[in-house]
Amino acid sequence: MEKRKIEVCFTSENIDYFHIRQSHVVVVDILRATSSICAAFANGVKTIIPVATLGEAKKAKQRGLIVAAERNGQKRDFADFGNSPFNFTPERVAGKDVAYSTTNGTRAIVSASGGLSVSIGSFINISAVAKWLVAKQEGDVLVLCAGRKGKFCLEDSIFAGALVELLLKDKSFYTECDSAQAAIQLWNVAKVDLPSYLELISQRHRLKRLGLDDVLQYCFTPNLTDVVPILVNGKLRNANVINE
Amino acid sequence: MEKRKIEVCFTSENIDYFHIRQSHVVVVDILRATSSICAAFANGVKTIIPVATLGEAKKAKQRGLIVAAERNGQKRDFADFGNSPFNFTPERVAGKDVAYSTTNGTRAIVSASGGLSVSIGSFINISAVAKWLVAKQEGDVLVLCAGRKGKFCLEDSIFAGALVELLLKDKSFYTECDSAQAAIQLWNVAKVDLPSYLELISQRHRLKRLGLDDVLQYCFTPNLTDVVPILVNGKLRNANVINE
Repeated sequence: MEKRKIEVCFTSENIDYFHIRQSHVVVVDILRATSSICAAFANGVKTIIPVATLGEAKKAKQRGLIVAAERNGQKRDFADFGNSPFNFTPERVAGKDVAYSTTNGTRAIVSASGGLSVSIGSFINISAVAKWLVAKQEGDVLVLCAGRKGKFCLEDSIFAGALVELLLKDKSFYTECDSAQAAIQLWNVAKVDLPSYLELISQRHRLKRLGLDDVLQYCFTPNLTDVVPILVNGKLRNANVINE
Repeated sequence: MEKRKIEVCFTSENIDYFHIRQSHVVVVDILRATSSICAAFANGVKTIIPVATLGEAKKAKQRGLIVAAERNGQKRDFADFGNSPFNFTPERVAGKDVAYSTTNGTRAIVSASGGLSVSIGSFINISAVAKWLVAKQEGDVLVLCAGRKGKFCLEDSIFAGALVELLLKDKSFYTECDSAQAAIQLWNVAKVDLPSYLELISQRHRLKRLGLDDVLQYCFTPNLTDVVPILVNGKLRNANVINE
């Protein structure tokens, strides 16, 4: 069996420098989009429709969908709720279709749509997504960090390192990618004392200023759920439910 | 005095996400462009004209300039020599004007030209460039890693970390930049055993396959020279000579 290559892309704006057609793309936006998407599926959402622009989000609202939308951390007026994983409660989302638009995360998902598959990774489903990727048996893996407006983010990158480290335990995978090596090294620095490490993260301070940092502990807790959201015809569904 | 902000950009393709007008931009392409440029100035070159395209490099040759040009590690036929620091000998370059075009490095220099200043950093002049930046007294600093075709490079990033660490010893500087934090962490992993660390670097293996890895030790030796090449009207000159 051919060995499977792992790469990491630190900002979704750079995805065109990678060949994604032969890769399973795992999209990562730890604070907060991909953590929230996993939370929503853990709470029984039926589908999430990632929409890149606020215009599309407004149209979805007019079509009667539930809409979660934020820009720069703040809920938009027309939306039902914003971008915190705590917004996606079972009461609000179970069995429902939700349109979702965020500053960086949903754009990253849309940019990945040419991949062999597109899945959603976060600490809260890290083992589940790793297991799902291993089970695919073929295809390379690209961990796509959303980053923040074209810039590198520590929180997405340390998650990428944790995921790559997990995948490399399976001998069918290898990496020759500098950003994958860097991500692993950063994760190994971070995991020694994660609470102190999180103090370095610029997005953590931004959320604190906005009074939105209540999600921090949740977003860095591993394996709260075994959902694996994947993109199918423009909608995110839970891979486990599709296969049932 | 206002505190001076330090940021790091991991690939020159992302420079537009940074505000460079108020920043001194330090361009970094350790393997090999910026190491070679510093070597050339250490050997007495008068000016280096960075040209982004091979077309411009050919025109420079027709105008009678000495031309150094490579793509993907290989010297181009029309050029006088390629991209190794060992090519820029005193016999060839002392007192001369040299046009220079490389895959990533010279493009990065050209992309930085809107900065408050543009200087050239490498391990071989690291203390000199740090001292020059401190002496500026105002203006932020952006360390611009050339990267490799839109991708993150370990060698440029660990240099960025080493330089940021040096600058932060001067209390006029601060950073809130995730990529600067990451670069410092990576440099601290790397410096414990640099020769082993270099084995992880993908570009190191590429150069080895091309028989071009003789430059490795040289490019990671700190402070071989005190030159500070800076861009003035489209040409690189040694800042120390200009100020004399």
